[in-house]
Amino acid sequence: MSLRGKDIISISDIKRSDLERIFRVASSRFQGDELKGKIIAMAFFEPSTRTRFSFETATLRLGGNYIGFEAAQSTSLAKGESFSDTIRMLDSYADGIVVRHSLEGAAKLAAELAEAPVINAGDGTKNHPTQAMIDLYTIWKERGNLDNLTYGVLGDLRYGRAAASFLKALNLYSPKKVYLICPEGLRPKQELLDSLKMPWEFSDLKDALPELDVLYVTRVQKERFPDPSEYERVKGSYKVDSSILKDAKEGLMILHPLPRVDEISLDVDSTPYAYYFKQAANGVPVRMALLSEVIP
Amino acid sequence: MSLRGKDIISISDIKRSDLERIFRVASSRFQGDELKGKIIAMAFFEPSTRTRFSFETATLRLGGNYIGFEAAQSTSLAKGESFSDTIRMLDSYADGIVVRHSLEGAAKLAAELAEAPVINAGDGTKNHPTQAMIDLYTIWKERGNLDNLTYGVLGDLRYGRAAASFLKALNLYSPKKVYLICPEGLRPKQELLDSLKMPWEFSDLKDALPELDVLYVTRVQKERFPDPSEYERVKGSYKVDSSILKDAKEGLMILHPLPRVDEISLDVDSTPYAYYFKQAANGVPVRMALLSEVIP
Amino acid sequence: MSLRGKDIISISDIKRSDLERIFRVASSRFQGDELKGKIIAMAFFEPSTRTRFSFETATLRLGGNYIGFEAAQSTSLAKGESFSDTIRMLDSYADGIVVRHSLEGAAKLAAELAEAPVINAGDGTKNHPTQAMIDLYTIWKERGNLDNLTYGVLGDLRYGRAAASFLKALNLYSPKKVYLICPEGLRPKQELLDSLKMPWEFSDLKDALPELDVLYVTRVQKERFPDPSEYERVKGSYKVDSSILKDAKEGLMILHPLPRVDEISLDVDSTPYAYYFKQAANGVPVRMALLSEVIP
Repeated sequence: MSLRGKDIISISDIKRSDLERIFRVASSRFQGDELKGKIIAMAFFEPSTRTRFSFETATLRLGGNYIGFEAAQSTSLAKGESFSDTIRMLDSYADGIVVRHSLEGAAKLAAELAEAPVINAGDGTKNHPTQAMIDLYTIWKERGNLDNLTYGVLGDLRYGRAAASFLKALNLYSPKKVYLICPEGLRPKQELLDSLKMPWEFSDLKDALPELDVLYVTRVQKERFPDPSEYERVKGSYKVDSSILKDAKEGLMILHPLPRVDEISLDVDSTPYAYYFKQAANGVPVRMALLSEVIP
Repeated sequence: MSLRGKDIISISDIKRSDLERIFRVASSRFQGDELKGKIIAMAFFEPSTRTRFSFETATLRLGGNYIGFEAAQSTSLAKGESFSDTIRMLDSYADGIVVRHSLEGAAKLAAELAEAPVINAGDGTKNHPTQAMIDLYTIWKERGNLDNLTYGVLGDLRYGRAAASFLKALNLYSPKKVYLICPEGLRPKQELLDSLKMPWEFSDLKDALPELDVLYVTRVQKERFPDPSEYERVKGSYKVDSSILKDAKEGLMILHPLPRVDEISLDVDSTPYAYYFKQAANGVPVRMALLSEVIP
Repeated sequence: MSLRGKDIISISDIKRSDLERIFRVASSRFQGDELKGKIIAMAFFEPSTRTRFSFETATLRLGGNYIGFEAAQSTSLAKGESFSDTIRMLDSYADGIVVRHSLEGAAKLAAELAEAPVINAGDGTKNHPTQAMIDLYTIWKERGNLDNLTYGVLGDLRYGRAAASFLKALNLYSPKKVYLICPEGLRPKQELLDSLKMPWEFSDLKDALPELDVLYVTRVQKERFPDPSEYERVKGSYKVDSSILKDAKEGLMILHPLPRVDEISLDVDSTPYAYYFKQAANGVPVRMALLSEVIP
C-alpha cells in the first residue's frame, strides 16, 4: 500500500509495481466501503465531464461522498478568492482533493498547500496521470501485457495533456516502437522527446497503421493553428475513419481519452478496433482502485 | 414487477395495472434501501428544478446516490461532445439514466444507446411520463378513482409536454368528459386529438368550470404567439383567480405542473381547490415508487 | 435540545446557553449519524463557497445528504418562479432548508413558508448567524472565554453581514471594549450601534491595535464608494500586513470570514496571529453541531 496518503501529480512519479497493483485491484472490484465516512473534494477549476463523473462515481461506489465545484464560475472564486485560499479551505473540509486546472503546476501547488492527498485530474499541457492509468489499464486488461507492442500516438502531442501523459506512462514499459503522428507545429516538446526511453519516430497515419497494436487518438484543435488555412490543409491526415482501417493489423486497439469531435468518425464505433468506450468505462474501476490506495 | 429494467419513455407505454401498482407503493412508502449501492445519472440537458430535485430526493430516500448535470453548459458538451457519446459515458457509470432534453425523441434515442434503463424526465413537446404519473396519482390519492370525472385542461395544449402527457394518461381511464381550454393557435396536435379515447370538446374556462372535477392548468407562453397583441388579447382568458372560482363545483381540484408565473393567482393558493403544492410534493413518492420498480 | 425544529434566522435569537452547548458539541465531535436518512436543501440564491461547502460537508459527516442549487441561474427560477413557490417545493422534499439570499429578510420569509426548519446562511446586510457562531467558537476554543476581551472590527460595518452579525453576537458576552474601524461612509447603521451593550468607540487600526485581543477583518468593497478617488484615499488604512502587526499584543487573534482579496496580505498568514484558516475549518464542526440540534 505504498501510495497511502501520497499526492498523485504526474504519471512519472508512479512505479510500475504500483501501477500493476492498481490494475489488479481495478479488474477485480466494483463496489466497496473503503471510503465510508470520507469526503473527497472535486476541485474542477476547468470543465470536465468524464473525468469528474468517473471520480464522483468511483467515490460513491466506495461508500464515500464528495463536495466540489466545476469551472468555478458561480463560487467565491468570482469574488477574487485566490487558488491557495480555496485549496486551504477544501483541505480543512475533505479527506482528499481532486484538482483539475488549465494551468501547469496547479496540482503540485495544491499538494504543497494541502495536508490531504491531492490527485491531479489534469493540469496544464503535461500531466493527466489518472487518464494515463486508464489508458494503460485498457490495454493491459485486453492484452495482459504492455511490452513489445507497437504504438501510434496521433493528434496534438504538444499541448494535449492526455497524449503527453500516455507517452510518459509508456516509459514504464518496453514498447517495441512508438510512432508519433502529428502536424509539425504540434510535435511533442523537446523535453518530452528527450525523456522517451523506447524507439520512436515521426510518421504519418497511413504509413504507420499496418504495424500498430495500439492507436491512441487525440484531437487536433483548430485554435492551435496560427493560420486557419494551415489547419484546413492538414486536418484530413489526423482523422480516423473505417476506410483507412482496412490496412489495420488484426487486434488493433483504438483508444481516445474523449470527448471526440470528429477525429474518429462514427463508422469506426462498430468496428472491432474501437476500444474508447470501454476505456471511458474503465475510468471508474481504475479511479476506485487509486482512491482506495491513496485516501488515508 | 413488470417494469424492472424497462425504459420509461412515454406514459402511453404504461399499463393501467402498472400505474396503479406505482400509486399503491407511492402512497405507502417514504424511505427505503432499494437503491443502496446504486447510482442514477441525472442528465438534464434542459434546466429543471422540481423534476430534478424530486428525482434526486427520491434517489437519496431509497438509499441511492446520483451524479449528473443540468443545462450542460459547463461540461464537455461545451467542447462539442455528441449526445450519443455523453449517454454512452453515463451508461457505463450509472445504474439508470434520467434524461431531460428540449428535443423530441432524445429520451428514446438515449434508451436505444444505453443498456441501463432510461427514464424520460421530459423531452420535446409530447412526453413527460413521470409528470403524468404524479398528476394522476394526486387525483387518485384524493378521490380514490380516476374514472367518471370531468376534466378541464387549460393552457398551451400544443407545445406543453405536461398537458399532452396528462391527456395521454387519461386514455388509461374512462373520464366522463374532457374540456380543452386553449387559444386557437395552441390547440393539441391532430395526432393527439385523434388518439383521445374519451368524449372531449373545446370550451372556455367560464363555461366549463361549473362541471369540472379537475382543472389542469399550464402556462400560455407569450413567446408562442407570433403577434404580441394577440397574446395580450387572449391572456386574460387563461388565468385562474379566486373570483372565477365562485362558480366551481365542490371538490374541484386545481392542478399545475409548476413552475407557474401568473396563470394561477396567489389568492387561489388558500382556497380548498389548490392541489398544486401537494402535487409537487407527490413528485418524491411517485418517483421513488417508479425508481424502485425500474432500476435492476 | 431547545433548538430542535427551530428556525435560525439571526444570531440575536440565540441564547448564550444554546451557543455554548453548540460550542461544546462542536469541539468534541467530528462524525455522526444524526442526519442518517435526512435530506437538507441548500438554497443558495446567492453564490457562496465556504458557507455552502461547509454546510454540505457537515451534512455528509452526520450521515445525511443534500439537494440544492447555487446562484439559481440554471433552474426554473430563470423561468420566473417565485421565491415562495421554490421554498414550498424544497419544504416538501427536504428535512431542513439552508437559505442564502442577497435580500434582507429572505430567510425569515422562507421560515414563515416552510414547515421544515430554516437556517439562514446569510441574507441581506445584517444577518449571517452561523458565521457569527463560527467566529465566536474560534475565539472560545482558543481562549476558553469571550468576556473581558478587547475587540476590533474592521472593514465594511454598514453593508457587511458578517461584521454586523459578529457585533450582534458579542452582545451575548461582556467584552471589555469594541473598536469600530471603518471609513466614515461604512459605519454601522444607527440601529445596530444603538443595540450594542458593550463599551465601543470608533478608532483607526494603528491606534487600536496595541490593545486588541481579537481583530475581526472584513473587506472594504470598492463599489461601496460613490467616488473612486475616495476609495483610493482610504483603502490603505484598512489593510492588515505584517509591518503594522509589530505593535500587536501577544496572543492577538486575527479573524476574517473569507474570502479575502487583499485586505490581509499574504505575509500575515505565517504569523502567530493568523486564525482565519482555523476559523474557516471550524465551519464544519460548528455547522455539524447546529444541524444535529436543529433538524428534527
